[in-house]
Amino acid sequence: MQLIPKSVERLTGEFGRLPGIGPRTAERLVFYLLRDSRGQHEQLGQALMDLKDSLTTCEICFNLSDQTTCAVCSTHDRDAHVLAVVEEPLDVVAIEKTGLFRGRYHVIGGVISPIDGIGPDQLQIRSLVQRVEAGDISEIILATNPSTEGETTALYIRKQLEHLPVTITRLARGLPVGGDLEYADQITLGRALQGRQAF
Amino acid sequence: MQLIPKSVERLTGEFGRLPGIGPRTAERLVFYLLRDSRGQHEQLGQALMDLKDSLTTCEICFNLSDQTTCAVCSTHDRDAHVLAVVEEPLDVVAIEKTGLFRGRYHVIGGVISPIDGIGPDQLQIRSLVQRVEAGDISEIILATNPSTEGETTALYIRKQLEHLPVTITRLARGLPVGGDLEYADQITLGRALQGRQAF
Repeated sequence: MQLIPKSVERLTGEFGRLPGIGPRTAERLVFYLLRDSRGQHEQLGQALMDLKDSLTTCEICFNLSDQTTCAVCSTHDRDAHVLAVVEEPLDVVAIEKTGLFRGRYHVIGGVISPIDGIGPDQLQIRSLVQRVEAGDISEIILATNPSTEGETTALYIRKQLEHLPVTITRLARGLPVGGDLEYADQITLGRALQGRQAF
Repeated sequence: MQLIPKSVERLTGEFGRLPGIGPRTAERLVFYLLRDSRGQHEQLGQALMDLKDSLTTCEICFNLSDQTTCAVCSTHDRDAHVLAVVEEPLDVVAIEKTGLFRGRYHVIGGVISPIDGIGPDQLQIRSLVQRVEAGDISEIILATNPSTEGETTALYIRKQLEHLPVTITRLARGLPVGGDLEYADQITLGRALQGRQAF
């Protein structure tokens, strides 16, 4: 017996495929939308259909953009001498939220991960080297994640840039603000010790 | 500066309007869909657009259905003498999952809630009375939620059915299975005591 209408079942299935949304949450979302009479399901549906329509990647930094050149690359009030190399567009958003970075970005689009079949050629690393070779860049901040893959990728990029007259830095590792020394894992605490600063 | 493309921002906003999805989760969902290359955003979008297209309510029990008569009402192997009165279609799903109910349903579509401007006339209560008046129903199980509004609605329905020769029951209140007596709230524990059964 088909107790649940097909369209409801289908949407529940689609919601359930999203990360972090289990079958119960998916069901609740669908029934929430069913109860709503202001056409919220259509607005969400349309937003989804339109998501990638006008979306492209910036031809300079490979960040997501709806222009051929993204907002950061096309403005003149950003320091063009400093480049933050990040994995994903969300990382750009995170760094922008700090309000402390006035340079530009290079989004490599992931990390080197042989297990997932992702090598350096699948990432925007060659374009990064070309960008640095083109000159005028004095510092590269390697802002890949502090994970094994992020670390590997940072090491690889450093090697690719060795021959160029550019300062290479990496985001500081240490205790997160508001964190508790007692609960910090040993590697983080070790890094915090090694990276201690004059006070 | 428009750092995030408009379509991304719009979809993040739409996701964020769903219950239980905050701005961070919305952002993650959007970027998950952006990374996906199998058109998952379009499948979800289409499922949303189609959600209510062929959807209607069963003309007998007012449950959601893609037919004029829902699956439960149109089958012959369900006991037509017992009717479970529930608030929402999800409640039908929940009761069906127990596998212990062989009767039929009546979905009233909410609860009496003067604060939200919902009175008995906005609910399918008159149609329930007519259905019982039409005869052949021996038991009405009032399966509205064990909340103040659910209780009020159950009391109201009981009053409407007073003049009819039908047994009216209410779902048992008590300790949830797997629950812990120590942590049960006093009202639930009180109900469990009052409703204790021979063992």
